[in-house]
Amino acid sequence: MSTQESFRIEYDTFGELKVPSDKYYGAQTVRSTMNFKIGGVSERMPVQVIRAFGILKRAAAEVNQDYGLDPKLANAIVKAADEVAAGKLNDHFPLVVWQTGSGTQTNMNVNEVISNRAIEILGGKLGSKIPVHPNDHVNKSQSSNDTFPTAMHIAAAQEVNEVLLPGLKKLQNALEAKSKEFSQIIKIGRTHTQDAVPLTLGQEFSGYVQQVKYGVARIESTLPRVYQLAAGGTAVGTGLNTRIGFAEKVAAKVAELTGLPFVTAPNKFEALAAHDALVELSGAMNTVACSLMKIANDIRFLGSGPRSGLGELILPENEPGSSIMPGKVNPTQCEAVTMVAAQVMGNHVAVTVGGSNGHFELNVFKPMMIKNVLNSARLLGDVCVSFTDNCVVGIQANTDRINKLMSESLMLVTALNPHIGYDKAAKIAKTAHKEGTTLKEAAIKLGFLTSDQFDQWVKPKDMLGPQ
Amino acid sequence: MSTQESFRIEYDTFGELKVPSDKYYGAQTVRSTMNFKIGGVSERMPVQVIRAFGILKRAAAEVNQDYGLDPKLANAIVKAADEVAAGKLNDHFPLVVWQTGSGTQTNMNVNEVISNRAIEILGGKLGSKIPVHPNDHVNKSQSSNDTFPTAMHIAAAQEVNEVLLPGLKKLQNALEAKSKEFSQIIKIGRTHTQDAVPLTLGQEFSGYVQQVKYGVARIESTLPRVYQLAAGGTAVGTGLNTRIGFAEKVAAKVAELTGLPFVTAPNKFEALAAHDALVELSGAMNTVACSLMKIANDIRFLGSGPRSGLGELILPENEPGSSIMPGKVNPTQCEAVTMVAAQVMGNHVAVTVGGSNGHFELNVFKPMMIKNVLNSARLLGDVCVSFTDNCVVGIQANTDRINKLMSESLMLVTALNPHIGYDKAAKIAKTAHKEGTTLKEAAIKLGFLTSDQFDQWVKPKDMLGPQ
Amino acid sequence: MSTQESFRIEYDTFGELKVPSDKYYGAQTVRSTMNFKIGGVSERMPVQVIRAFGILKRAAAEVNQDYGLDPKLANAIVKAADEVAAGKLNDHFPLVVWQTGSGTQTNMNVNEVISNRAIEILGGKLGSKIPVHPNDHVNKSQSSNDTFPTAMHIAAAQEVNEVLLPGLKKLQNALEAKSKEFSQIIKIGRTHTQDAVPLTLGQEFSGYVQQVKYGVARIESTLPRVYQLAAGGTAVGTGLNTRIGFAEKVAAKVAELTGLPFVTAPNKFEALAAHDALVELSGAMNTVACSLMKIANDIRFLGSGPRSGLGELILPENEPGSSIMPGKVNPTQCEAVTMVAAQVMGNHVAVTVGGSNGHFELNVFKPMMIKNVLNSARLLGDVCVSFTDNCVVGIQANTDRINKLMSESLMLVTALNPHIGYDKAAKIAKTAHKEGTTLKEAAIKLGFLTSDQFDQWVKPKDMLGPQ
Amino acid sequence: MSTQESFRIEYDTFGELKVPSDKYYGAQTVRSTMNFKIGGVSERMPVQVIRAFGILKRAAAEVNQDYGLDPKLANAIVKAADEVAAGKLNDHFPLVVWQTGSGTQTNMNVNEVISNRAIEILGGKLGSKIPVHPNDHVNKSQSSNDTFPTAMHIAAAQEVNEVLLPGLKKLQNALEAKSKEFSQIIKIGRTHTQDAVPLTLGQEFSGYVQQVKYGVARIESTLPRVYQLAAGGTAVGTGLNTRIGFAEKVAAKVAELTGLPFVTAPNKFEALAAHDALVELSGAMNTVACSLMKIANDIRFLGSGPRSGLGELILPENEPGSSIMPGKVNPTQCEAVTMVAAQVMGNHVAVTVGGSNGHFELNVFKPMMIKNVLNSARLLGDVCVSFTDNCVVGIQANTDRINKLMSESLMLVTALNPHIGYDKAAKIAKTAHKEGTTLKEAAIKLGFLTSDQFDQWVKPKDMLGPQ
Repeated sequence: MSTQESFRIEYDTFGELKVPSDKYYGAQTVRSTMNFKIGGVSERMPVQVIRAFGILKRAAAEVNQDYGLDPKLANAIVKAADEVAAGKLNDHFPLVVWQTGSGTQTNMNVNEVISNRAIEILGGKLGSKIPVHPNDHVNKSQSSNDTFPTAMHIAAAQEVNEVLLPGLKKLQNALEAKSKEFSQIIKIGRTHTQDAVPLTLGQEFSGYVQQVKYGVARIESTLPRVYQLAAGGTAVGTGLNTRIGFAEKVAAKVAELTGLPFVTAPNKFEALAAHDALVELSGAMNTVACSLMKIANDIRFLGSGPRSGLGELILPENEPGSSIMPGKVNPTQCEAVTMVAAQVMGNHVAVTVGGSNGHFELNVFKPMMIKNVLNSARLLGDVCVSFTDNCVVGIQANTDRINKLMSESLMLVTALNPHIGYDKAAKIAKTAHKEGTTLKEAAIKLGFLTSDQFDQWVKPKDMLGPQ
Repeated sequence: MSTQESFRIEYDTFGELKVPSDKYYGAQTVRSTMNFKIGGVSERMPVQVIRAFGILKRAAAEVNQDYGLDPKLANAIVKAADEVAAGKLNDHFPLVVWQTGSGTQTNMNVNEVISNRAIEILGGKLGSKIPVHPNDHVNKSQSSNDTFPTAMHIAAAQEVNEVLLPGLKKLQNALEAKSKEFSQIIKIGRTHTQDAVPLTLGQEFSGYVQQVKYGVARIESTLPRVYQLAAGGTAVGTGLNTRIGFAEKVAAKVAELTGLPFVTAPNKFEALAAHDALVELSGAMNTVACSLMKIANDIRFLGSGPRSGLGELILPENEPGSSIMPGKVNPTQCEAVTMVAAQVMGNHVAVTVGGSNGHFELNVFKPMMIKNVLNSARLLGDVCVSFTDNCVVGIQANTDRINKLMSESLMLVTALNPHIGYDKAAKIAKTAHKEGTTLKEAAIKLGFLTSDQFDQWVKPKDMLGPQ
Repeated sequence: MSTQESFRIEYDTFGELKVPSDKYYGAQTVRSTMNFKIGGVSERMPVQVIRAFGILKRAAAEVNQDYGLDPKLANAIVKAADEVAAGKLNDHFPLVVWQTGSGTQTNMNVNEVISNRAIEILGGKLGSKIPVHPNDHVNKSQSSNDTFPTAMHIAAAQEVNEVLLPGLKKLQNALEAKSKEFSQIIKIGRTHTQDAVPLTLGQEFSGYVQQVKYGVARIESTLPRVYQLAAGGTAVGTGLNTRIGFAEKVAAKVAELTGLPFVTAPNKFEALAAHDALVELSGAMNTVACSLMKIANDIRFLGSGPRSGLGELILPENEPGSSIMPGKVNPTQCEAVTMVAAQVMGNHVAVTVGGSNGHFELNVFKPMMIKNVLNSARLLGDVCVSFTDNCVVGIQANTDRINKLMSESLMLVTALNPHIGYDKAAKIAKTAHKEGTTLKEAAIKLGFLTSDQFDQWVKPKDMLGPQ
Repeated sequence: MSTQESFRIEYDTFGELKVPSDKYYGAQTVRSTMNFKIGGVSERMPVQVIRAFGILKRAAAEVNQDYGLDPKLANAIVKAADEVAAGKLNDHFPLVVWQTGSGTQTNMNVNEVISNRAIEILGGKLGSKIPVHPNDHVNKSQSSNDTFPTAMHIAAAQEVNEVLLPGLKKLQNALEAKSKEFSQIIKIGRTHTQDAVPLTLGQEFSGYVQQVKYGVARIESTLPRVYQLAAGGTAVGTGLNTRIGFAEKVAAKVAELTGLPFVTAPNKFEALAAHDALVELSGAMNTVACSLMKIANDIRFLGSGPRSGLGELILPENEPGSSIMPGKVNPTQCEAVTMVAAQVMGNHVAVTVGGSNGHFELNVFKPMMIKNVLNSARLLGDVCVSFTDNCVVGIQANTDRINKLMSESLMLVTALNPHIGYDKAAKIAKTAHKEGTTLKEAAIKLGFLTSDQFDQWVKPKDMLGPQ
């Protein structure tokens, strides 16, 4: 990776390896960098997973102390783990996602970093594994097979709570404000992209509000299962080499450290061998992606123009839109939203394929799955904020244009159905369409009603709800 | 489609068309069969949608009567709609899924069939639209844009409740019974497909139980939004041409007729323009598909053999497995399960793409979306029953084989970690592996412990849970 | 399935079963209907697969005769197989897709039907397996494992050649004719859905032509591998129980019978264990689906209106568009196209998941894979024809509207870049936009150029190509 | 992003902005970082796109010089562009993928960096746009709408040629060597995961070779359309503001600079508005992903054990496999392969969704699409190398185990079909299975053949091919 000048020697059960002197990681981490040269720096394990591991390792150390781990060691582990959780040691986690499918190498990377940092805190020699052994102490009562999925759930739950849900709620609020602001603006509706009966612009936006609001509910409805932690299952779910109560205590500690309602998973076999909870969360995000795609598409089409589009909305002008067409302004925030939506749909398929391919006691698509889940949560959350701040809050209604389109619409004829029946109403609309006249002119010409009747029956304001 | 000999003439706003004398449908249906020759008979609108329309049209007629529709007409509509709901008129619905994206033509097909059947009941002339007009009476207070999504939700909710959930619960119960039956059988665990520490076969099956149980919960958690009906929104969601209270009353009637807790959708704009609720339901089924893929894969691999596979399970022999290899028996039920799982994952992407592409006041991927949702629900439900009846309930443990594999496993060494540490334990396992000996032999040879210690510490029965 | 009154007894290696007297199938078919009650009639094995089996069984019988099969038996098999190939015996194939993943049961269904029909031809007793045994004679030198993939390839290649490619070419020709027809109509371009520089409507359509033309090329480029047949590989690819030359001769016979350039697969292990060729074909169809989605979306948006949309195209009016809005006309053919596109994308994921999950010597997602491939080919081909006949050929340009939008466009300013630079040109456009004036007025007001210069430099006709 | 201390002022058509003094980019780049805070550093535009832009901008400058661009300016642009192409200025490209969907901001980022670097080379003042203007000179005869897709194709073609195809070919060669090495090892075949007739281990591997070989062919068959460049189409495909011949000359220059056979796209409208060529390439990679998933799954299952799995292959031991189970070794390379395969399938769906959603003259999912395509190419190529070096080349056959399993197999009975018929052969196999005896014992006991006949007919060596 770099031209490190200075090394120390560390070993694992496969032998000795050179480790850069300025890094806390050890032999297994180095070995992984040698065996998995796949994708490079941009494919590293998401930092959220590393930080979640920091939380978990601290929790485990504290609980292990309850069960007899030397408080001195436990304390040092807690301090080192805190630094990992705080993101202070990110440079010491060079491994890529494309490693062993259990994430064992990242778990060992964490164990090694915490071990060496704890050794340093205690004045020992890096790489000596004394007095803090990466496996026997940092990983005590744990296995990669339960810690990695635990870190997955912690990281996913945090990203959802810190990025995704706040982003969605911010967007929901902004859309809701617009819905109210636009509540008196009557506009033409469009179905099949074709002219239809009127509604208010506020009503149109209320549909978007509902979509995002339900999006929040959809995400939240998956969280109970994301809050279930595998820790305590160790290698295959039985909890071998842990103590009774360890699982529950670790979950409680993690809950305390994160402020999120984590609990121990009721069935550890499921928690190691399947990651249905993440497929489920990804599915909820996939639904949100559909919602956002719809909303952003609508807004860019309603804002299309300035002169040859639908032109009902005026979108904020944020940047020069074209390198060749001077003065062009584009709905770029909508484009970011729809690109993110497409990515989330793709990520969801990757998660699904991974989630379906577990075997026996372990699913070994773990790093890939969490990478995609975190990516979807982050991108959706971020793009909601960007879209809100740089587009939604600044949307203006082009009321002149809206009024013009609405008043010309042939579909106002629908209001006549209850009075003259569908077939006659159709004749009026078709006549007006063919002859390029107004509905009223056509209606009178056809002798289906009087001018007064038309004025009385065809009132856009009366077409906005049931009678 | 066929060589009908006898016709009557019907008309729609586009003109006259010949309609087979023995069919209740009318001009718009015939017109659709002419304009959409796509896929043929196997691509017809699912009968569940047609039947759901029957329920809805009955409910609407009854509510319309409350608001003034002539009881004689209402009654005839109710009778005709009941026949549609009962599936008695299925032959009168020839339209394919690949029609207009709002399902308008199927709504009109329903309106025409009910209109003509009601006319017949009242002694009128088929095709006369008198005294029961397909639009003015059968479709009264309705639009395709709200009735089709209402029928989608009714059909989906029914299929989920009648086929999918019972199927899943049946499978869950069968797996749970096996989990109990196998609770005392200690076997080797496998992680990364490689030998790992032991667990009971009952524990292994308990993971499957948990997956299916959560699958039920996942499906159920999406239903509140599926139970929301668009009826009353009419053309664009405003409820134009309906009466105040119509929406609520129709939903209540549908709830009464189906025994399911349908309510009116709180926001009709969302209910017409987006089908996030179906994307969400499809996402839950996608998660279930992942679960079933995992379970069926495990069972076929654990049952692989009879002599050269893992051979821990004995699966029921249901049919000759091969046309060339005499006596071969295959895990065919597992194969049906995994094929269905793949199909559901594909269906989910189709639903997602359709769900993301609504525009303005209407999503026009409706028929495609409901086709896929119903297909997933039906296939999953049916395959759960088939898998349960023809495979799961008959699974036997091959205890001889299980014992043999378990006792030879090198991973029992894990029990030594707390006593001699990870590094020494690793040496024992590696030595035994290289020299082809037992763990005990290797341990003693390496001088890490005594024979007694080994026997005391390495007990599979003690490795099944925390201490 | 039905209330058959009369039965005969047939047996397979599992025992005896009642078979309806009026059916040619035998015990294994009946057994499958009992064990796989999944999805019902609409989920039956596609008839194209059955007919392809007819072709293959005839070819095999003729080649077997070369290697010693009694000509009398061979002849009877050929006759019966011909009837299967002609679709005359479709009612005798009741099995669903969701059966064993090798399609063994459908192969046996075919063997049983041909055996019994051949026995009948030869005056024997149905179910006696004498003188034509389903396995020993009809399936001679074959296994389900090589015949089913052979039938898959035959069916796929035929559907592609008979439905998909003709449909695409028809659409390509229609679009090409429109491109020529519209070659002189200058219109505003739209990028980011926003007004951009002009192009001709013919140029716009030429892009669609290119997409469909490349679609044809993409499909065709996958066919060489679809034309490779597995026949001759038997159970695991080795060709056990066949004769040297059998594989090549069968492929040649199939080529002769179908008029398509089938050859024997160079590696039978790959041909049984993987279905990459179908994933590849499905991928090409997925690309075509993207193309069609783009084209149909464009056409419906360009045809949106009639008064409040873009309104540049006038689409054929094919049917009443709404059950509530009288006189409404919708782009229903575009909707069918886009729904099919979404379905094909979903089918592709199902095929991908199935294709990735083969194990050892056999992929057991065969029936599911071919079902989806055939469905995509059929739907795409059919919808191209429907779209062409009912929409594309009737598209008219709304030249008044097109001219109006084009002449008002601010993006004509781009022609000024080479003369006054991007920054000044941008100022002109922005000024005109803000003040609602023409570009010319703004340009002169800003003093950047003279009226004459503007007229000379800003000519839409000169903006249609490089200079 | 950072705490830059020193700034200069630059402007775009929206106004002035502070730009870090040590960066070459300008106002539009800064504006984009303010408007698109989505995903952070890990979501930056892939460096391959930036480098491809360097190549393109150089080519364009040289061609522009032919058409009159001041050679002094052209020269400076060429030098600056070369630095971009060489990756020397990567730090000056801070923009994320999630920006405008045309990639305009990245095109402007490139224009700004090259402009400022060229100004610097010529001794001018950064940000002055004099004497090298980012739009008027660096972007001369270009638009984002044609340059970004050109850079997409250059980057994709290079990644495919430099990473993906070499990786696949390396894997193919390694598998081919193993296939030869294992050509004499007869082993049991497995279909439906169940015991089947024998084949050689070399034959089994030959299937993998064929899959990878066809994978190479599949990728290559898509390249002709990837080699087509949009450059010269400018804003909407017409080539406005370019000169006749510009498009062809630029493509030729790019071909020269890259050594790849780029040509100008025959239809620029298609080249801007659709990215079917990338959907197609992604589809080919999706097929390759299926192949690799199959191969890696087989290898890990065949190598499962060491004592309780199939155990036919011995995989290289590369690292400690478990943090809790000492001495455990896992098929980690296979796991990386299958995780990459799942990711590629997901990426493909993202590309498909983006590719299907272009509108009018421009597809605005460009950055998202190329990100996924490049990611798939890179991951597949890298993982092939890693898998080959760290797993495939070191695979050994466990011949003892292979022989043992093969000789016990009941499916050797298939060799008896031609001699005694399928039904009797089935009885032998079933008897042996039930009674736990050998086939020979069962055959003789049933009286179907003699001991000599059995020995003569059932020879694994004779079962490896047609007779």
